[in-house]
Amino acid sequence: MRRPNVTVLGGGSWGSAIASIAARNAPTLLWARDEATVADINERHVNSRYLDDLPLNPALRATNDLEHAIATADVLVLGVPSQACRGVLTEAAEHLRPWVPIVSLVKGLEQGSRLRITEVVRETLPGHPVGVLNGPNIAREIAAGYAAAATLAMPDQQQAESLQNLLRSTMFRVYTSTDVVGVEVAGALKNIFAIATGFGDGLEAGDNTRAMVITRSLRELSRLGVAMGGHEQTFSGLAGMGDLIATCTSPHSRNRRVGIRLAQGKTLPEIEAELKQVAEGVKSAPVVMELSREHGVEMPIAREVDAVLNHGQTAVRAYRGLLREAPEHEFHGDAW
Amino acid sequence: MRRPNVTVLGGGSWGSAIASIAARNAPTLLWARDEATVADINERHVNSRYLDDLPLNPALRATNDLEHAIATADVLVLGVPSQACRGVLTEAAEHLRPWVPIVSLVKGLEQGSRLRITEVVRETLPGHPVGVLNGPNIAREIAAGYAAAATLAMPDQQQAESLQNLLRSTMFRVYTSTDVVGVEVAGALKNIFAIATGFGDGLEAGDNTRAMVITRSLRELSRLGVAMGGHEQTFSGLAGMGDLIATCTSPHSRNRRVGIRLAQGKTLPEIEAELKQVAEGVKSAPVVMELSREHGVEMPIAREVDAVLNHGQTAVRAYRGLLREAPEHEFHGDAW
Repeated sequence: MRRPNVTVLGGGSWGSAIASIAARNAPTLLWARDEATVADINERHVNSRYLDDLPLNPALRATNDLEHAIATADVLVLGVPSQACRGVLTEAAEHLRPWVPIVSLVKGLEQGSRLRITEVVRETLPGHPVGVLNGPNIAREIAAGYAAAATLAMPDQQQAESLQNLLRSTMFRVYTSTDVVGVEVAGALKNIFAIATGFGDGLEAGDNTRAMVITRSLRELSRLGVAMGGHEQTFSGLAGMGDLIATCTSPHSRNRRVGIRLAQGKTLPEIEAELKQVAEGVKSAPVVMELSREHGVEMPIAREVDAVLNHGQTAVRAYRGLLREAPEHEFHGDAW
Repeated sequence: MRRPNVTVLGGGSWGSAIASIAARNAPTLLWARDEATVADINERHVNSRYLDDLPLNPALRATNDLEHAIATADVLVLGVPSQACRGVLTEAAEHLRPWVPIVSLVKGLEQGSRLRITEVVRETLPGHPVGVLNGPNIAREIAAGYAAAATLAMPDQQQAESLQNLLRSTMFRVYTSTDVVGVEVAGALKNIFAIATGFGDGLEAGDNTRAMVITRSLRELSRLGVAMGGHEQTFSGLAGMGDLIATCTSPHSRNRRVGIRLAQGKTLPEIEAELKQVAEGVKSAPVVMELSREHGVEMPIAREVDAVLNHGQTAVRAYRGLLREAPEHEFHGDAW
């Protein structure tokens, strides 16, 4: 088998970081809609919009010609925002060669249809094997050469092993799995819990409470994930617990930052202007609530986040009982 | 039933924080060996040695008369360092009334015997029901009135529920369990993993790597805990995952700080002088390695920590493969 050509769709931070790794292992082309990003990567080997001046692999090429990027692909890596997937994939459909496997990096669910992104892929590109890569992967750190690990889930273990060799480096370890649903659901749901943790950090609820909220969040996430067809075990691994801890504790986590800012009284439009994009958790919150109802899984933490994002609830009220008592109440009444 | 008298043995941070909570619910006496601590609590309602000037409940009394503290106890809470338990309990044996339940707060295992502390209690005070309280409980935050939650495990669920009412407050939620072994093992083993996480933080290994190390640590901890008789589920709850995350991420965690300082090249005696005491993880590391061999459970992370603490290994070497590549290697060789 000749060396496969890898095409990465999407010029965001995570797509660029993975494309830079793949470029070590195979000819890799990144498709981005934004011309400045394409020029940045081809001429300066950086993605200054999302990754400042962190050097990308100089072998990585970029284009904004979607047809060319798709037609030359032997492996397609999907890194566009969740709500843009269907459009891009529909455009791609007529140019993609048969059997080309697709690996989704997308952390989210499609609004309206409530579909996982690999399900959107199966609808738009039927017949192509499709899987997902997920783990504790703050993109900026990976691009900066810090060590990390992730799980690559494909329906066929053998194909997962072939793809593993394309997407890893000595500093980026890729483990394989066949639990596509579990790995994908974990990535899609974690962001809402990062917002919940951010509320607590913005309100200075403390390290104990943060640990408690993360622990309970994993329980909610696992319950819904298992109800949706994921394997229990996946949620205690890198793509579940690992990714959740990274997203809920890293200062680089966008969704956590949304929670912090909301707790500090900022509005969503103000926060989105500051972050230059909508955090995935904001978009997935209502979808998660629909899934929670559909599968009959109680999700009290997710519900509070959705209430703050979409129903006028305040973060302080969402954290009722989880905040430090006002000092004047410390020694009377039934609080201490 | 009249209101029970609670006696807390040990004037450390965690014992003092719990005693301050119990004092809201029942007459509570704290026994400490250190006279200055006793005076501090009785006269100024603080434990300045361990909790600076955080106010303790003024109803809390302290004594250094062990016989009196034991003889008046209807509930005994054990908060002395793991290696001091047997001595204190042996002294206590002849004064304790029959049937008095004992709740251990101790996070560690007895060196030499490799016993859990509730097993030490059963040897020294046979016939007394014994359980354990554990969770994501940075003592300083609890004393400062931040919200937290913990799990109280007793062999008898009904007794757990009675004791729950003595040891909780509106800001400190206590859940019950009957898995004494699981809750205790989680608390005893977590500290070694906090040291491992500290290595990474001291070496600036990044947020992804920290999340990965915590995730793998929980797997090691669960495997050994289940082999020792704990329930799998306990390790995904507050006393397992919750406590592990708090201990591995809080700036107040003593064991994490030991790891950071070791990674920065400090020696153990220097660190112990700075922290004013030996961190539990340092003492439990060799015991954990013996248990790992005894139960045939592979524990690669714990092994590296033990190697650094006791066998001249360096933290950098323990984290081989998990640290950022030197920038000059970023674009040649097979690392990037």
